[in-house]
Amino acid sequence: MSVTYSLTAIAARLGGRVLGDGEVRVAQIATLESAQSRHISFLTNSKYRAQLATTEAGAVILAEADADATGLPRIVCANPYAYFARVSALLNPLPEIRPGVHPSAVIGASARIDPTASIAATAVIGEGAVIGADSVIGEGCCIGENAMIGSRARLYPRVTVYHDCVIGDDLIAHSGCVIGSDGFGIAMDEGRWLKIPQIGRVVIGNDVEIGANTTIDRGALNDTVIEDGVKLDNQIQVAHNVRIGAHTAIAGCAGIAGSAVIGKYCLIGGGARILGHLQLADHVEVAAHTLVGKSIREAGSYAAIFPLSKQEDWRKNAVHLRHLDQMAKRIKALEQQFESLKTSITEREE
Amino acid sequence: MSVTYSLTAIAARLGGRVLGDGEVRVAQIATLESAQSRHISFLTNSKYRAQLATTEAGAVILAEADADATGLPRIVCANPYAYFARVSALLNPLPEIRPGVHPSAVIGASARIDPTASIAATAVIGEGAVIGADSVIGEGCCIGENAMIGSRARLYPRVTVYHDCVIGDDLIAHSGCVIGSDGFGIAMDEGRWLKIPQIGRVVIGNDVEIGANTTIDRGALNDTVIEDGVKLDNQIQVAHNVRIGAHTAIAGCAGIAGSAVIGKYCLIGGGARILGHLQLADHVEVAAHTLVGKSIREAGSYAAIFPLSKQEDWRKNAVHLRHLDQMAKRIKALEQQFESLKTSITEREE
Amino acid sequence: MSVTYSLTAIAARLGGRVLGDGEVRVAQIATLESAQSRHISFLTNSKYRAQLATTEAGAVILAEADADATGLPRIVCANPYAYFARVSALLNPLPEIRPGVHPSAVIGASARIDPTASIAATAVIGEGAVIGADSVIGEGCCIGENAMIGSRARLYPRVTVYHDCVIGDDLIAHSGCVIGSDGFGIAMDEGRWLKIPQIGRVVIGNDVEIGANTTIDRGALNDTVIEDGVKLDNQIQVAHNVRIGAHTAIAGCAGIAGSAVIGKYCLIGGGARILGHLQLADHVEVAAHTLVGKSIREAGSYAAIFPLSKQEDWRKNAVHLRHLDQMAKRIKALEQQFESLKTSITEREE
Repeated sequence: MSVTYSLTAIAARLGGRVLGDGEVRVAQIATLESAQSRHISFLTNSKYRAQLATTEAGAVILAEADADATGLPRIVCANPYAYFARVSALLNPLPEIRPGVHPSAVIGASARIDPTASIAATAVIGEGAVIGADSVIGEGCCIGENAMIGSRARLYPRVTVYHDCVIGDDLIAHSGCVIGSDGFGIAMDEGRWLKIPQIGRVVIGNDVEIGANTTIDRGALNDTVIEDGVKLDNQIQVAHNVRIGAHTAIAGCAGIAGSAVIGKYCLIGGGARILGHLQLADHVEVAAHTLVGKSIREAGSYAAIFPLSKQEDWRKNAVHLRHLDQMAKRIKALEQQFESLKTSITEREE
Repeated sequence: MSVTYSLTAIAARLGGRVLGDGEVRVAQIATLESAQSRHISFLTNSKYRAQLATTEAGAVILAEADADATGLPRIVCANPYAYFARVSALLNPLPEIRPGVHPSAVIGASARIDPTASIAATAVIGEGAVIGADSVIGEGCCIGENAMIGSRARLYPRVTVYHDCVIGDDLIAHSGCVIGSDGFGIAMDEGRWLKIPQIGRVVIGNDVEIGANTTIDRGALNDTVIEDGVKLDNQIQVAHNVRIGAHTAIAGCAGIAGSAVIGKYCLIGGGARILGHLQLADHVEVAAHTLVGKSIREAGSYAAIFPLSKQEDWRKNAVHLRHLDQMAKRIKALEQQFESLKTSITEREE
Repeated sequence: MSVTYSLTAIAARLGGRVLGDGEVRVAQIATLESAQSRHISFLTNSKYRAQLATTEAGAVILAEADADATGLPRIVCANPYAYFARVSALLNPLPEIRPGVHPSAVIGASARIDPTASIAATAVIGEGAVIGADSVIGEGCCIGENAMIGSRARLYPRVTVYHDCVIGDDLIAHSGCVIGSDGFGIAMDEGRWLKIPQIGRVVIGNDVEIGANTTIDRGALNDTVIEDGVKLDNQIQVAHNVRIGAHTAIAGCAGIAGSAVIGKYCLIGGGARILGHLQLADHVEVAAHTLVGKSIREAGSYAAIFPLSKQEDWRKNAVHLRHLDQMAKRIKALEQQFESLKTSITEREE
């Protein structure tokens, strides 16, 4: 049986105003559409308001403006989406940590593992590595020599942290992500590539989440830096010497090329690409699948997307892109010829 | 020595009509260009028909329309490409399964593993997990608590299945793929991101193949669903609450954002992106590297690709995209001015 | 304490001309901006020349043309970037290999592992696999049956090499990369996909580096081939039967579709896509995020990128792409109407 909370108990912990029967108990959170009586639901997008009339939810979380939009037992608050996140965390606590090292894990003799930490089966912790209090290192994770991981980290199975990387508290790292692999540094010399040793580290702040199969390369000379509160989705590539500013969120499959510096509170869309050595100001939003080819100095939303069409229309239209410069010149020529024709007509009339 | 089959024996198993010497034996399948006498080859694309004259293949698979295109021993059938797939499977059977659990694997006490299944070295199976008959869990795979995997699954090394995910029969999952990682759910609250617990699952039907390093996130509240017969190539990202319809095939590096619903029998090209909450009808084809930014209600082929040019031509042409609206207005102005000039000339003449 | 070298000792090993005090000793390499007295720095890009005046580096590497641009102790050479790479390798030697097999590794009875090789904790080596001299197989790596890896390979943790793949000497493979997974080969038959067995291998030459979470599929019938000196960044997808020519370098997140043939000394930008069955000549450069949709027969630089703008400008301009063909026709119509108007005016005047 899962734990249940009354609305009154939830509001006592998380704030907000209870309207209707505060003794209604809820066990889980659900969308308006799928909720049943043991669920608390939420309205965070006005386009779902009509569902308030039909939902079977036992209770609802609402913004102040919607306080009277339903007669259901409800909690009214300033930011229903954040409130929903908090209620969900309350109703879905993480599994308890079982401190200790699984017998199949392999731990370097000089590694320092906090006694409250949990090291799962087949994990490998290198010499000199440090694992902080209440951290969980999942199955098959490989933590390199002298890497440091703070407190309350949660590494899902098969995460790699290379040697010497430094990670703050409250890291969440999903399966398959790689932190600290070599940056792509090569120098051409007489017909072959020489490898440039990548001697920087990856340094990650507090409260960072890293998605499945995301890769973050170590710096070439200086460090690659991920500041506090950064959220990275799956399959993102962060190249060497990138700096990602605090509280920036990046969606899946984005790629950040070497030495790019991204500001704080940026939102980078899925599959977007930031070229190397560019700088993005704070509060920049980049649309999905957009290539950023020059620095962005000013907050705001930016995009570069080819609009979708049916294949046959696309074919007909796209071919002209190879002649756009010519088209522009033809327009200019028409304007000039038109002007001179008008002038000559006028002159003739005078 | 590999096993050989006569054409007659192949046709007895797989159907089709044998023409020429049915006792010719073949050991392997090969392209027309590289085949030798012990090989059976195939013609599935008319542009290779000339190779029929020069191939050294011992036998050939052909469509009815091409039945007389060669005098080589041959099997004539309705769908040569599918027939080729079946002959190749016949000549290249999967290695036999060695049932049992490798001593280095770590198995949760309450996991239920079918006695015909094979659990390879260093695999980890969580508490309450279920592994079906004749399934192979490769080296270093991590199967989470209470995850369920059906019969005849083949997980290559280093696959992760998170807790509670449910997978049907005949799964093929390649190395490094991740099933059930947390979706990218965050809520901004007073300057920092709150994590939204991802309490849905990934639910996968029968006969699904998942490529290397592909990631499929678990649902936020409801489940992420992959229907029967879906084929996913490598490095695809499937976000939370996506539904992919039966028999849809998606090429490498594509990304499907949260809550997108893709129909049945769709073909999504490599590197394509489908934005969140969109719907694609059945039988939609999306070209490679195309962003789908609105729902597609009608079957058909869709594209959005910038055409390739030499860098200097691209530079010259692309710059005008920033002024396309102005160009359109200048054309309209020219048309209007031209009309009024024509009118005024005509009036003057009257 | 790290080892130090005098400039004279460095030049004795690596060539170049010492100017100023050759007895100055350096312990590490650093950028002009961050270098201190124990560092040797370098000038490889003229835009940093001003930093020569303010750097605190103990010594500098310079091109002949810049030999007199500073009074600091310096080494003058033909290719400062390559020289920097060599000095860095000298100052940052790889950790020494500890030959032998970790007790937690699992080794097939018929595998042949050179006694100078190092097999790390939890690695698994299949039956019949061969590991060459001085090679390092990292933690959690899985080497398939009969795979062959040459000498001096360095596989970081959690690399997978599938059965039968063949790899030359001096491979560097980063964490999470997958070599030899099945290509995406499927044939539609009466409403469902049949799998086409992928019976080719991956064959990799000497001196190849493969980035984190990059995937290289085995061939369908023939092999996938990566020639000598190829450098692959992170999260690249190489499909079945691709051939990548010697010394080609490919940046992160690029995707190469099936049977594409890429020439030698090509440079492929991050996130670029090469469609299947295309051919690229030697010395072709493809810009980042560019889709190559036709073969490139001629060396040179190619691009196909939508230029970035503010979202509102993008919206205004991009909408016209769906009417570009119509715009072109309207321009043509204007030109024709204009010509005939001019003609008629001239005729009237005569």
